[in-house]
Amino acid sequence: MSQASTGYVPPLEDMHFVIEQVLRAPQAWSHQGAHADLDAATAREILEAGAAFAVEVLAPLNGPADLEGCHWSPEAVRTPAGFPQAWRQFVDGGWPALACDPAVGGQGLPQLLDAALSEMLVSANHAWTMYAGLLHGAYEVLRHHASPALQQRYLPEVVSGRWLATMNLTEPQAGSDLGLLRSRAVPVDPAAPMASGAAVRVSGQKIFISGGDQDLTDNIVHLVLARLPEAAPGTRGLSLFLVPKCLPDGRRNAVHCDGIEKKMGLKGSATCQMRFEQAEGWLLGEPGGGLAAMFLMMNSARLHVGLQGLGHLEAASARARAYALERTQLRAPCRPPGAPEGPADVIAWHPAMRRVLLALQARTEGARVLAYWCAQLLDEQAQHPDATRRADAAELVGLLTPVVKAFLTDLGHRGADDALGVLGGYGYIHDYGIEQHVRDSRVARLYEGTNEIQAIDLVMRKLLGRPRGLTLLLEELERTAAACRADAALLDTGRVLQQQIDLLGAGVQALREARQADAEAPLRVADDVMDGVGHVMLAWAWARIDLAAGQPGVAPALAERKRLVARHGLEHLLDASAHRWQRVRQWARPLPWVPA
Amino acid sequence: MSQASTGYVPPLEDMHFVIEQVLRAPQAWSHQGAHADLDAATAREILEAGAAFAVEVLAPLNGPADLEGCHWSPEAVRTPAGFPQAWRQFVDGGWPALACDPAVGGQGLPQLLDAALSEMLVSANHAWTMYAGLLHGAYEVLRHHASPALQQRYLPEVVSGRWLATMNLTEPQAGSDLGLLRSRAVPVDPAAPMASGAAVRVSGQKIFISGGDQDLTDNIVHLVLARLPEAAPGTRGLSLFLVPKCLPDGRRNAVHCDGIEKKMGLKGSATCQMRFEQAEGWLLGEPGGGLAAMFLMMNSARLHVGLQGLGHLEAASARARAYALERTQLRAPCRPPGAPEGPADVIAWHPAMRRVLLALQARTEGARVLAYWCAQLLDEQAQHPDATRRADAAELVGLLTPVVKAFLTDLGHRGADDALGVLGGYGYIHDYGIEQHVRDSRVARLYEGTNEIQAIDLVMRKLLGRPRGLTLLLEELERTAAACRADAALLDTGRVLQQQIDLLGAGVQALREARQADAEAPLRVADDVMDGVGHVMLAWAWARIDLAAGQPGVAPALAERKRLVARHGLEHLLDASAHRWQRVRQWARPLPWVPA
Repeated sequence: MSQASTGYVPPLEDMHFVIEQVLRAPQAWSHQGAHADLDAATAREILEAGAAFAVEVLAPLNGPADLEGCHWSPEAVRTPAGFPQAWRQFVDGGWPALACDPAVGGQGLPQLLDAALSEMLVSANHAWTMYAGLLHGAYEVLRHHASPALQQRYLPEVVSGRWLATMNLTEPQAGSDLGLLRSRAVPVDPAAPMASGAAVRVSGQKIFISGGDQDLTDNIVHLVLARLPEAAPGTRGLSLFLVPKCLPDGRRNAVHCDGIEKKMGLKGSATCQMRFEQAEGWLLGEPGGGLAAMFLMMNSARLHVGLQGLGHLEAASARARAYALERTQLRAPCRPPGAPEGPADVIAWHPAMRRVLLALQARTEGARVLAYWCAQLLDEQAQHPDATRRADAAELVGLLTPVVKAFLTDLGHRGADDALGVLGGYGYIHDYGIEQHVRDSRVARLYEGTNEIQAIDLVMRKLLGRPRGLTLLLEELERTAAACRADAALLDTGRVLQQQIDLLGAGVQALREARQADAEAPLRVADDVMDGVGHVMLAWAWARIDLAAGQPGVAPALAERKRLVARHGLEHLLDASAHRWQRVRQWARPLPWVPA
Repeated sequence: MSQASTGYVPPLEDMHFVIEQVLRAPQAWSHQGAHADLDAATAREILEAGAAFAVEVLAPLNGPADLEGCHWSPEAVRTPAGFPQAWRQFVDGGWPALACDPAVGGQGLPQLLDAALSEMLVSANHAWTMYAGLLHGAYEVLRHHASPALQQRYLPEVVSGRWLATMNLTEPQAGSDLGLLRSRAVPVDPAAPMASGAAVRVSGQKIFISGGDQDLTDNIVHLVLARLPEAAPGTRGLSLFLVPKCLPDGRRNAVHCDGIEKKMGLKGSATCQMRFEQAEGWLLGEPGGGLAAMFLMMNSARLHVGLQGLGHLEAASARARAYALERTQLRAPCRPPGAPEGPADVIAWHPAMRRVLLALQARTEGARVLAYWCAQLLDEQAQHPDATRRADAAELVGLLTPVVKAFLTDLGHRGADDALGVLGGYGYIHDYGIEQHVRDSRVARLYEGTNEIQAIDLVMRKLLGRPRGLTLLLEELERTAAACRADAALLDTGRVLQQQIDLLGAGVQALREARQADAEAPLRVADDVMDGVGHVMLAWAWARIDLAAGQPGVAPALAERKRLVARHGLEHLLDASAHRWQRVRQWARPLPWVPA
């Protein structure tokens, strides 16, 4: 195999097309104070520089780090060869601060560009990207909840990436159910009022802590969920604390990494078992406000997990396509016009492979539009001059976040697995890189709230709980369908999208009836709703691509390719969700208990 | 977690139910000369002994071998700790010869029991089982194609398992396309007639050779596809040769293992790059008869790959069920009658998990009926006193083999992945065993003919090429549906099965039209046909289970559990194939070329 088919090639042209033509982001930036000076050319330069970092620095480390893994000793965790150096280059390039506020040392660029950067980093090296993954969340939490003294000490270090952060939530008995957490925090001065910044001693065991220890940065800022004395049971009794690995006076804090997990993938990312032994820390925000503080970072964190799905889908699909366009096996029943005849044809011409490759490409491009739109809405939520638009964007982000997290990580992992199949036996071999995408992408369906939890969030809190988000989404969907209907060349596209809108409407109606009749019923079909809504959003994304391809300024060859792929998706890839919506409408069907 | 939820527990009760109640195999044995002395009690004893071997010897080696992997040096491959000892125990127990002819040292037991044994071995340790995997094929090839002298020298060693065998097909440029093979065989005596047993020198490179070198046996019998001088191009020019690792006079042959692959899974199984440098060997069968000799072992080999899918599906599902019945997280919206209340409920009560677990259980039990029936038909093909029944059985086996291979390995791998999700983050951790099932099961969809190749075989050669097999299958399906209709309690079951039969009939009719109109059309929907036929066979299997549960002699609790699971499958798990059949009926839809 040639180098081109095993290496990562950032899809810059596709990314620019989504940002500039589909989402028309440069026009939006001109209305957003913080981004008014940003233009399309500058955005392209930034992404090209990010692409160079991903290709030159991160991608070469990816396969070797998977084989090497992380090294644990009671004193320290050592990450794979090259990881610390790559981190220093990332920091020196100012990348961690891309979307942070210039007031605290950030570059103030849109979340949209940060999303595109994240896609490339994950495509090139998901394991390495895990270390950076919690910076966004830590930044938000510190900005909104840390006392001024803590902000002064920690925020510049986190924004710059000189120190990394972790999120210490999970305990052995408490995964999806944070109400069962047992870690404790005791005030240093029981007489002092328990306010943000108060000093505490934190004790407890945490598991599955990404980057709980590492050798990329000198210090690590642990954000820890724990209970103050006499806190309420359940999630209301949780508070959030900042517990650094190294204390301001240079001493090591009583924070220990007792081991790292042997995992299916992400072997370059240290997943740590942590033990806090009366470790010194400080309260962030109000007592009992731990979960609320966590939720602050949730939308952005879940969007980034969705981008991990996209990153794997893109990289694995591109590898499979490159392989299939080179590898010759058997004669194809038909050849493209003018194609040469030989003893065997490239497998990309065989119908079974064409199906897989076209589906991968259509899903990748649709997923990218959806994920980037969500990032654009985060910018709108933060930056739009009109408060109503900001509030509307927030509602849409709330509704879309579980879909982006769950549906895109499902697409990413399953797509990587389909891509593996294109390589046949070679797909099973480490050197070809695809099997690592399959293993690495699997965890994104599990962490940051399992995809089953996302489906419950979508159904119970978003579709049934907050009608405003759905109204806004339906408006956007209808607007897109109307735009298609207004163009004689896009009548089929508009018709297919309208069918999807109708399925969504009928599905939500069925859910409302279900909730009245039977509290469990919406939960029995939550997974179907997620898949159905995901397909509605793919249909919308393909329609937006089809619309954008017809705009002036799009090169004819690019426009033709975009139309072909989007219309393939609209025609061939939506039927799989019809029976899911049917199940939603049949919510009354009982579900037996599992026999022991 | 308790030991019970991480260890393998052979599903003996389920296996006995299929063999005795669903397939009524003991009644069939009484009509088959070779098995007339076998009764249900003896069969149970054999399977219990096999289960003990799987649990006590193989299962404990599985996880450690995955972490250790195989060790390569230019001189030899070393398998993981315990593998050679386990092989010796297997040989001492007489297991390799279970289904071989007593005339050559075998035990003459039914393929059906060998299939049940295989399921357990794979559930316990797929990697180890790979070394034994080619004995069946080598046995068949040697019996039918080896010269008497070669038979005398090699057959007893292979039947006993004292020597293991390999199948050397794939070359770097020739995977699915064996016509591209380049390995060469040159007669030692160019003047002698080129007949079975003739001495040759074999040269060439082979890849992906399971057990190409290993330290389980003193000698290895390589079966090698290569071309004699002036052989025809393509597959017609391929001949089969026996090339031993050690020659009869004790010298090492010029057979070299140049390396082993780093793979996604099956790390305890050495996947070897082989080099033959004028290695000494002998022709098996006729010149140019290589592919025909290979086909002899194909049905049995592909059935065994299908059993690998079943083995993983069973083991991963059982682990997930055990975990879900122990692990408590969050309150479930409803509890089973009389269940205790606590701060959190077992996750097996949560609707999202119930769905997954019930689906896994239903698919496992359906898949077992299908795979075991195929093994029973192999026995019928070999042993039935009536020649017509033997021929009919062969036709059915031919039709079912690609379905068992592809559909069951898809179910196995995807099911293992679903089971992983039940464990949430723990599913991603090696210690819990499920992620290894996901990795190990993946390759079964790729080797022994990729599942895409199986789908083409099913559509082109079996459904469109040999109408007799389909006629016989439809008769069996109709017979089962009629039996359901004859029982007032099974009317729904009969109705659902009839719907599936009608989908199959309409689908095949569409394929026949497609072939007339457009040579490529059946290939565009082959994957859909495979999925559709697989679901028809699951419906049939669940109907057979539902019928069997009502038979006298089935314990009431077992009957109730069997009915619940089978009916859940019939009611909830067939809708996913409706759109696949719809695509088959819409075969005329064009499929674009993949954009570069």
